[in-house]
Amino acid sequence: MYTRCILRDKYSRFNLRRKFFTSAKSINALNGLPDSGNPRGESNGISQFEIQQVFRCKEYIWIDRHKFHDVGFQAHHKGSITDEEQVDPFSLVADELSILANRLRSMILTEIPKLGTAAEYFFKLGVEGKRFRPMVLLLMASSLTIGIPEVAADCLRKGLDEEQRLRQQRIAEITEMIHVASLLHDDVLDDADTRRGVGSLNFVMGNKLAVLAGDFLLSRASVALASLKNTEVVELLSKVLEHLVTGEIMQMTNTNEQRCSMEYYMQKTFYKTASLMANSCKAIALIAGQPAEVCMLAYDYGRNLGLAYQLLDDVLDFTGTTASLGKGSLSDIRQGIVTAPILFALEEFPQLHDVINRKFKKPGDIDLALEFLGKSDGIRKAKQLAAQHAGLAAFSVESFPPSESEYVKLCRKALIDLSEKVITRTR
Amino acid sequence: MYTRCILRDKYSRFNLRRKFFTSAKSINALNGLPDSGNPRGESNGISQFEIQQVFRCKEYIWIDRHKFHDVGFQAHHKGSITDEEQVDPFSLVADELSILANRLRSMILTEIPKLGTAAEYFFKLGVEGKRFRPMVLLLMASSLTIGIPEVAADCLRKGLDEEQRLRQQRIAEITEMIHVASLLHDDVLDDADTRRGVGSLNFVMGNKLAVLAGDFLLSRASVALASLKNTEVVELLSKVLEHLVTGEIMQMTNTNEQRCSMEYYMQKTFYKTASLMANSCKAIALIAGQPAEVCMLAYDYGRNLGLAYQLLDDVLDFTGTTASLGKGSLSDIRQGIVTAPILFALEEFPQLHDVINRKFKKPGDIDLALEFLGKSDGIRKAKQLAAQHAGLAAFSVESFPPSESEYVKLCRKALIDLSEKVITRTR
Repeated sequence: MYTRCILRDKYSRFNLRRKFFTSAKSINALNGLPDSGNPRGESNGISQFEIQQVFRCKEYIWIDRHKFHDVGFQAHHKGSITDEEQVDPFSLVADELSILANRLRSMILTEIPKLGTAAEYFFKLGVEGKRFRPMVLLLMASSLTIGIPEVAADCLRKGLDEEQRLRQQRIAEITEMIHVASLLHDDVLDDADTRRGVGSLNFVMGNKLAVLAGDFLLSRASVALASLKNTEVVELLSKVLEHLVTGEIMQMTNTNEQRCSMEYYMQKTFYKTASLMANSCKAIALIAGQPAEVCMLAYDYGRNLGLAYQLLDDVLDFTGTTASLGKGSLSDIRQGIVTAPILFALEEFPQLHDVINRKFKKPGDIDLALEFLGKSDGIRKAKQLAAQHAGLAAFSVESFPPSESEYVKLCRKALIDLSEKVITRTR
Repeated sequence: MYTRCILRDKYSRFNLRRKFFTSAKSINALNGLPDSGNPRGESNGISQFEIQQVFRCKEYIWIDRHKFHDVGFQAHHKGSITDEEQVDPFSLVADELSILANRLRSMILTEIPKLGTAAEYFFKLGVEGKRFRPMVLLLMASSLTIGIPEVAADCLRKGLDEEQRLRQQRIAEITEMIHVASLLHDDVLDDADTRRGVGSLNFVMGNKLAVLAGDFLLSRASVALASLKNTEVVELLSKVLEHLVTGEIMQMTNTNEQRCSMEYYMQKTFYKTASLMANSCKAIALIAGQPAEVCMLAYDYGRNLGLAYQLLDDVLDFTGTTASLGKGSLSDIRQGIVTAPILFALEEFPQLHDVINRKFKKPGDIDLALEFLGKSDGIRKAKQLAAQHAGLAAFSVESFPPSESEYVKLCRKALIDLSEKVITRTR
């Protein structure tokens, strides 16, 4: 019996965080978080019935975001299994990642030699961060392997159901293709941008070729997806495509009010970044034959990891590799895009409204925004929110059904370590 | 027992035309075409075994393309059921087409108001030609309805299995979304083009928005496709996406030799134009629960209709609404794209090689090409090839399993009439 844990915050219905725990008690055991005293009550105007419908559970617990916020990530790590040394997540699936990257690279090089540069850029071996998504998915696949006898890791890997593993590798490949396609298409420039000489791969390779390369990857992803012959997985990853576009639409076409809304920002971030991780993690769990509850835990892991990743990206866009403000590339704000740090600063300094409404276009606007941001708690709060989501991601993995396999345990630990790496990285 | 009829021509393996007939005799009965006398022999270096493998049939008949060429379309029409008055294909499915177009239009307008212009442009009611694909698919759906009692057309329509019809409408909708998405993406311009001021919708709406609109349609198509929960249909239409991209790659990146090859041109044309019709027609037949042989007849209809359509488009690009050369928009040749009329002219005038290799870029090249084309039989041969494919499309429909329903007969006649309209249109 699973009890879902729902984080309560002020960002309304959309922003409800959700998670399973094996029992209500485990929350306290894990990090001493208090039950907010309202386990069956209403919150944010959502009725108990609605919650049960949305989260498909009868049992749920409200946790106050604010309380979680303070104890958050640190508390979690104290009580968890991560006392040992950190696992190098990459090393656990390095061989498979190489095969995958090589396959993607040579596929592009063979079919569209003109795209050689793009293929090298996106699928080059040894480039840190490029294989983040496939790595997470392969670790997820190993973490959810069931019915494997307890043997040494090497033998165990060989003993894995090969067909299942191949299908999971396919999911990882499809996910990476969708990701790169969306990068290519998001970067297509208008005539105005090219005249201004905005730097991007597409500026070098040309819009037409960038669109073609993206479509090529999407079409290959569709064919690979169809070949899995699993209608549920097809639905999950089709939904991702829709979310990516919806997120892009939300970013391109929004009102002043929407630009100042944290809820709008979080929804857009889910669509643009987290949905791909969430749904592909769920697809991995589905292929592994896991029950619905565990598939949702995998989904929650991907979702929270994706949100944490993006929130920290937003911070790094301001701070860069240093801790000081304004050392980042400031690319978001230069494009008029409002992210979490500014939105938190806005709560303290409503004067930022005007600057945001002008999309930072008036001379001096960017400096003004940075000034308010520096005076505010924006950066710290955005980091905390990232840590919170990272913590939730880790909780999801710890809520997986117990396994006696050392290899499975190692892969789960790697997933948990990754959730911490995502928020402690400096680039 | 079906016997496939394979058209023999010189464009090698790829270009073999294929079709079912209920019996070998029906060919002669239909249009007096001679069996080429080599029904079990080899052709183009392809062995009998290979043919049986490729076409999945034990019985096959070679028809010499040249002989078919001469009697082609006219012969077919003499012997067929089309002695009566022409059916207005549009009127048979007008209501459904309106619903479909409205749904697509309002979907775009709701989700991306900025795309209003594009939505109006692509899905406006009353614009001839815009609803060609959905019309063909709905007529195909009606033509392959089985087990319908013989009643008046109106009652019969109501008696159709509604669920099946809705799924077929969905296929028509998906097909139109894919088609429009490919138009939008094909038209994305490079910086150079926009500076030269090449006219296109995308030039007005901007590359970025055009890519987004295309991706939006593709993602919606994916979700709609997934919701059909039919893995075979998902595979067919994913393949179409791949073909569209492959066709575009073939057009963008080719060698001089490939540009002068009729085989290459036909393959590209199949990928860029005919595959969508072929595979969506097949999907309609699959949803109708038709056996594999009939699904292949539907595929053949779509394929040949698509090829005929494109071949005539290539002719019209030279002739325009008039019969005289050079009155068309000449947009292909201006973009350096070689089409069927030029390729036929090249067979007579090898001097065209140089002009083609230069992609018509040297001053005077276009005039030179037009001069050779005028002296050659290129236009007539391209029209004949179009007529040939139109004839094959009509044959496919006539090979459908017999039906006593007047409505079904009417829809089949409409499909046959369409195949003629495609090659007799002047715009």
